[in-house]
Amino acid sequence: MTETQQRPAGARPSTETLERRGPIATDRDGTPGPLDGPEAAGILDGVRAAVDPELRAAIESLPPSLRRIGLYHFGWQHPDGTPAAGNAGKAIRPALVLTAAAALGGPAARAASVAAAVAVELVHNFTLLHDDVMDQDTTRRHRPTAWTVFGEADAILAGDALQALALRLLAQDPHPASAAAAARLADCVVELCAGQQADTALEKRGPDEVGLDEVLAMAEAKTGALLGCACALGALYAGASQEHVVALDAFGREAGLAFQLIDDVIGIWGDPSRTGKPAGADLAARKKSLPVVAALTSGGPAAAELAALYEKPYDRDDGDDKEALHRIALGVERAGGRDWAQAQAADRMARAMQELARAVPDPEDAGGLLALAEFVTRRSN
Amino acid sequence: MTETQQRPAGARPSTETLERRGPIATDRDGTPGPLDGPEAAGILDGVRAAVDPELRAAIESLPPSLRRIGLYHFGWQHPDGTPAAGNAGKAIRPALVLTAAAALGGPAARAASVAAAVAVELVHNFTLLHDDVMDQDTTRRHRPTAWTVFGEADAILAGDALQALALRLLAQDPHPASAAAAARLADCVVELCAGQQADTALEKRGPDEVGLDEVLAMAEAKTGALLGCACALGALYAGASQEHVVALDAFGREAGLAFQLIDDVIGIWGDPSRTGKPAGADLAARKKSLPVVAALTSGGPAAAELAALYEKPYDRDDGDDKEALHRIALGVERAGGRDWAQAQAADRMARAMQELARAVPDPEDAGGLLALAEFVTRRSN
Repeated sequence: MTETQQRPAGARPSTETLERRGPIATDRDGTPGPLDGPEAAGILDGVRAAVDPELRAAIESLPPSLRRIGLYHFGWQHPDGTPAAGNAGKAIRPALVLTAAAALGGPAARAASVAAAVAVELVHNFTLLHDDVMDQDTTRRHRPTAWTVFGEADAILAGDALQALALRLLAQDPHPASAAAAARLADCVVELCAGQQADTALEKRGPDEVGLDEVLAMAEAKTGALLGCACALGALYAGASQEHVVALDAFGREAGLAFQLIDDVIGIWGDPSRTGKPAGADLAARKKSLPVVAALTSGGPAAAELAALYEKPYDRDDGDDKEALHRIALGVERAGGRDWAQAQAADRMARAMQELARAVPDPEDAGGLLALAEFVTRRSN
Repeated sequence: MTETQQRPAGARPSTETLERRGPIATDRDGTPGPLDGPEAAGILDGVRAAVDPELRAAIESLPPSLRRIGLYHFGWQHPDGTPAAGNAGKAIRPALVLTAAAALGGPAARAASVAAAVAVELVHNFTLLHDDVMDQDTTRRHRPTAWTVFGEADAILAGDALQALALRLLAQDPHPASAAAAARLADCVVELCAGQQADTALEKRGPDEVGLDEVLAMAEAKTGALLGCACALGALYAGASQEHVVALDAFGREAGLAFQLIDDVIGIWGDPSRTGKPAGADLAARKKSLPVVAALTSGGPAAAELAALYEKPYDRDDGDDKEALHRIALGVERAGGRDWAQAQAADRMARAMQELARAVPDPEDAGGLLALAEFVTRRSN
């Protein structure tokens, strides 16, 4: 469990790993890390300033009954409708839109792509609202999730409305790329839904019934797809060629998968004093994270022993079960899950860099996207 | 309860009144009624033929995990994936799109507006999938609802994907009106969500806490908005003036409200042998239908007595409660609810005709839309 998100023991994990880890711009304990150039933080501050007014205007345009849910979800209002300080998340996805547009089309393209950035952020938050209902997650961004405050039906309806707002923004945008961007974003929504569907289905299966390829495909659909789409929309708004759009999409997807792999490693072996979540929480929830499934599918006695341990639900009041978490973590490591995940993450980041170089050959132009990719994947485990 | 839709006693009523009454092209008992010109039935057959291939292609484009839910929901597959005869509903909304386009732009406009018709039908079915989850309705179109077969999460995700498909179809449509149509359809989605939100909120309140204006506004948002939007999209695709688009939207909204009023009257006083639902089912569910709220808000002793009766939940095993349904129906009638609803329905239809005449002055051109409006509002109570 993280400090930003909690769920009942045994419930399936959430989509929103990019946000549930707490501050990403710094290490888990809040100290700026060695790779924390001012660049990523500066990019994100600039993005919030560019995106928030239009994002908020979109939410304000909703009828009152849905507006209050949106304003609450984005942290701009308390449940009673009084103003709140606001914690609308890290704006990684809108940052990728604007930074990709700038990389391929300069400041004018960046300025022209704000509506696309807002649309991506609206889609992301529509999926958060729905996923929190399905996963019965009770905390997001340090606050009770919308469904726990307004009820499941209202949270579902607010999510539906946010999807509509996203596609309306693009439909109303006179930019020549807006229709292609809307089609691509709608395709991405379908992929996000399929990813969430796969996740719920995988979590219902036994530990010996899950393949590594399908967990990787699920992670790509749930986490990689929207990061890729955000980059692709920036490229479209910069008037880039189809080849460059495809390459930037792949860059975002690969960076997203690298992030997920590292996040899963930290979920098992991260230092609780730095991660802000208790040791072994992902294992206690029997989460079918990437290192675990890699270990389970590795064959041999270590995998079989791990499957036997993972089969039995965790009982937080049972001291033996607590002790077993260490044995499970050791089992995942002995079966090669940790090494595989770290090698995969490095491989994915290398692929992301290749795609980035293909789309944006000038390292200076690519600097912003590189900083964001390092930002989302940097971890101090 | 109708033959097409059932819900647990006390649960709130569904959106989908246009479909839950069984065949609309004929009287409730299947006998063609006096107003059944061949025209409406012919229009609807033609619409299904024009729309179904593209509708089905859209569903087939989904990833397998979501495709099977869509194919089941539209009646094209059984739960196990084997082919089914198909019962995708009455296609009223796509019929309004195509017929409005034909009325204002002739056969070429009708042919060009198929994507818009499919988009409207996808939005309609996305709301059905979600509303059935929220309302816990267990039967639709004579079959178990999708969530009862695939689970709530999968039904929500399939609905999300259908909304995305709808807006993708318009984003990919090269027609010059497609962006305006997408923006209008997205606005309509927001209104549908607000209407459903209002409905769930109203059903939680006591019988003396509901105003007639808010129930009318809710019915317009839930039922009228998408019928109006369908007509407006047809007008947009015909290249009609803004004034004509607005008038056709109003035509659809008013006809939709007339339908809802008549449907609510039949829900109380309809002949069970013709309606296919037990007498007093809406009253047993304590449904805050339009005639009931008109009666409750009429003032005087009949309204107060009705409120007292309506306050207490219905117990199907209590003979006294069964007996009380007759007293409630009589109370609604004595307090003026029935007369009000019938007068309102006539008034709404008159307004619909005025708007239609404004948008399509030539009666011959307006004939198709007139036939569809009569078709949806015709009832043999």
